[in-house]
Amino acid sequence: MQSEQELRWKKLEQKLKEKDLDAFLVTGKMDIFYFSGLCSGGTVLFTSKKKFFFLPPMYAEEITKDESGWEVLVYENSLESELENVSRKINVKRCGFDSNQLSFALYKKIKEKFKAELVPCDGMAEKIRAIKDGKELNLIRKARQITIDAFYHLKKILHNGMSEKEVANEAINYILREADDVSFYPIVLFGKRTSRPHGKATEQKLRDNELVLIDMGAKIGGYCADITRTFMWGKVQEKWEKIYNFVHTLQQLAIQHIKPGVKASKIDELIREETAKAGYQKKLLHGAGHGIGLEVHEQPILKRNFDTVLEEGMVVCVEPGIYFAGEGGVRIEDMVLVTNQGGHILL
Amino acid sequence: MQSEQELRWKKLEQKLKEKDLDAFLVTGKMDIFYFSGLCSGGTVLFTSKKKFFFLPPMYAEEITKDESGWEVLVYENSLESELENVSRKINVKRCGFDSNQLSFALYKKIKEKFKAELVPCDGMAEKIRAIKDGKELNLIRKARQITIDAFYHLKKILHNGMSEKEVANEAINYILREADDVSFYPIVLFGKRTSRPHGKATEQKLRDNELVLIDMGAKIGGYCADITRTFMWGKVQEKWEKIYNFVHTLQQLAIQHIKPGVKASKIDELIREETAKAGYQKKLLHGAGHGIGLEVHEQPILKRNFDTVLEEGMVVCVEPGIYFAGEGGVRIEDMVLVTNQGGHILL
Repeated sequence: MQSEQELRWKKLEQKLKEKDLDAFLVTGKMDIFYFSGLCSGGTVLFTSKKKFFFLPPMYAEEITKDESGWEVLVYENSLESELENVSRKINVKRCGFDSNQLSFALYKKIKEKFKAELVPCDGMAEKIRAIKDGKELNLIRKARQITIDAFYHLKKILHNGMSEKEVANEAINYILREADDVSFYPIVLFGKRTSRPHGKATEQKLRDNELVLIDMGAKIGGYCADITRTFMWGKVQEKWEKIYNFVHTLQQLAIQHIKPGVKASKIDELIREETAKAGYQKKLLHGAGHGIGLEVHEQPILKRNFDTVLEEGMVVCVEPGIYFAGEGGVRIEDMVLVTNQGGHILL
Repeated sequence: MQSEQELRWKKLEQKLKEKDLDAFLVTGKMDIFYFSGLCSGGTVLFTSKKKFFFLPPMYAEEITKDESGWEVLVYENSLESELENVSRKINVKRCGFDSNQLSFALYKKIKEKFKAELVPCDGMAEKIRAIKDGKELNLIRKARQITIDAFYHLKKILHNGMSEKEVANEAINYILREADDVSFYPIVLFGKRTSRPHGKATEQKLRDNELVLIDMGAKIGGYCADITRTFMWGKVQEKWEKIYNFVHTLQQLAIQHIKPGVKASKIDELIREETAKAGYQKKLLHGAGHGIGLEVHEQPILKRNFDTVLEEGMVVCVEPGIYFAGEGGVRIEDMVLVTNQGGHILL
């Protein structure tokens, strides 16, 4: 039976053929972890004949020399010199690289030394990563379940006088007990501060009758969850109940339209149109969502200008939000699996 | 009185003059926070006449339109289109950018639209950030103190049967109570696993008579600490006491040579020479250290090929380590301030 990694390399090989490339340089940490299953340090050069793993000495012990199929090269000096040495020995003409995952500075250094044409491929490795296999889905489901459990836990212990930061710390403590790590530092906002999509938790204390927004996620085996809940702590202005229901409608609309063959940007467009109809177009401050996996934000991005076509096995966070500057905001975010029967909230 | 930010902009302006540039594009998140003091989202374009802050709508509320001296541009579409619009209105000929902080993909997009020559400047903004002002030093000192306190706390509660992960979680809990965040997920390793410089905490349980390595840091007001301690839990082979003393000697040697005017790479060279004399050259798996501030690893990097010259006010982590694969390792890391009287461990 082939390992997950072998199947992933096959997909990459297929993409290389389509683009007439005979090698690919993997520089993104998460791409390296995805394709190697070994570690996220170093740099990988893939050719149809051989796979090279370039490692600084610090990571040498993470990979044994005989991991099947790898030529492990531990380098003391610079990556670009090591790449130069290898490129003199192998016959590579056109080598792809992910242009989102390489800085302009390192591109220039490699280009100077590497004996092959460097061909920018925008997000190529990340697009392969976007479709999850069964093992990945299981990890994502586990991470999601722990995140949901963490919400229950917080709702139980929440009380007036607790600060945003105390709630965030409690969320982290809970998640660290159950998972490997948090996906990101939790967003916890009270009252009018909920209007800031990426606001930072402060010493602000919870009081009666205000909005509470919590956005958090657990991480397991490298895989992230990301879920947002907004709720009313006591009684709030009726307006917010309407907004809440409206945001929920937006999320349902988006999920109904998620299916293989639909462009990622289309989901965002639908939400924007519906929001404009309700007169809230100025209150929509971010895209409809994003893929999730080894990174919290990854392909496919549900946002204008992102033309990735949705495919079966992708997992996306759908997170519509409506924000009134200085007053408050509501965001609801869930993780949705793209299936042939449409979008299903992960359970 | 001038604000810290104004003084920082003056330094940047000086560098632009030296390189005959009339604008600078700031794209690194930490650089943006450093120069604006406002937020780390968006993108900044600096000219001698005006400072532009390009923000996606999500961050709009973080900056009010009248923050003195800023022209805030909230864009719905793409950054490159917005940059194009602005570059048509202002007269810019040569615009610098930090080539380490811009992906090749975004560089290409901006280059296509922007009406000025884009001049790569390797780490220019980061080099200004390397020299800390009094306010920054105070935050770094606080972050360091909390980290030291966290070590005392861990030593008190450590007991046989505790897993690496439990210790890491306890470190995080302690730091989150006292600081804004952790600088990074703590490295906690027991026994032979201490040989992995970047090993991840596992379920491995602490037993009598083994090495313990803990590398962690608190973060306050954006500023990081990063400290490593290795100690013997019970009685270990005499060899490790010798190694510990040797690593301590290496650290002292490095600190003695830290002073304004010395190249960062020189400190690394000294450690490598001393290690080679002792016959341990193959056991040295990483550079001598790194600058610290808004990022855990920043300029100046104490490593070969890094020619930044040390200056008064820089803060560097000095972290020699000797590692025996499969047996264990010792690393000692402290934060050192570069002063005119030499290197002083931050207290």
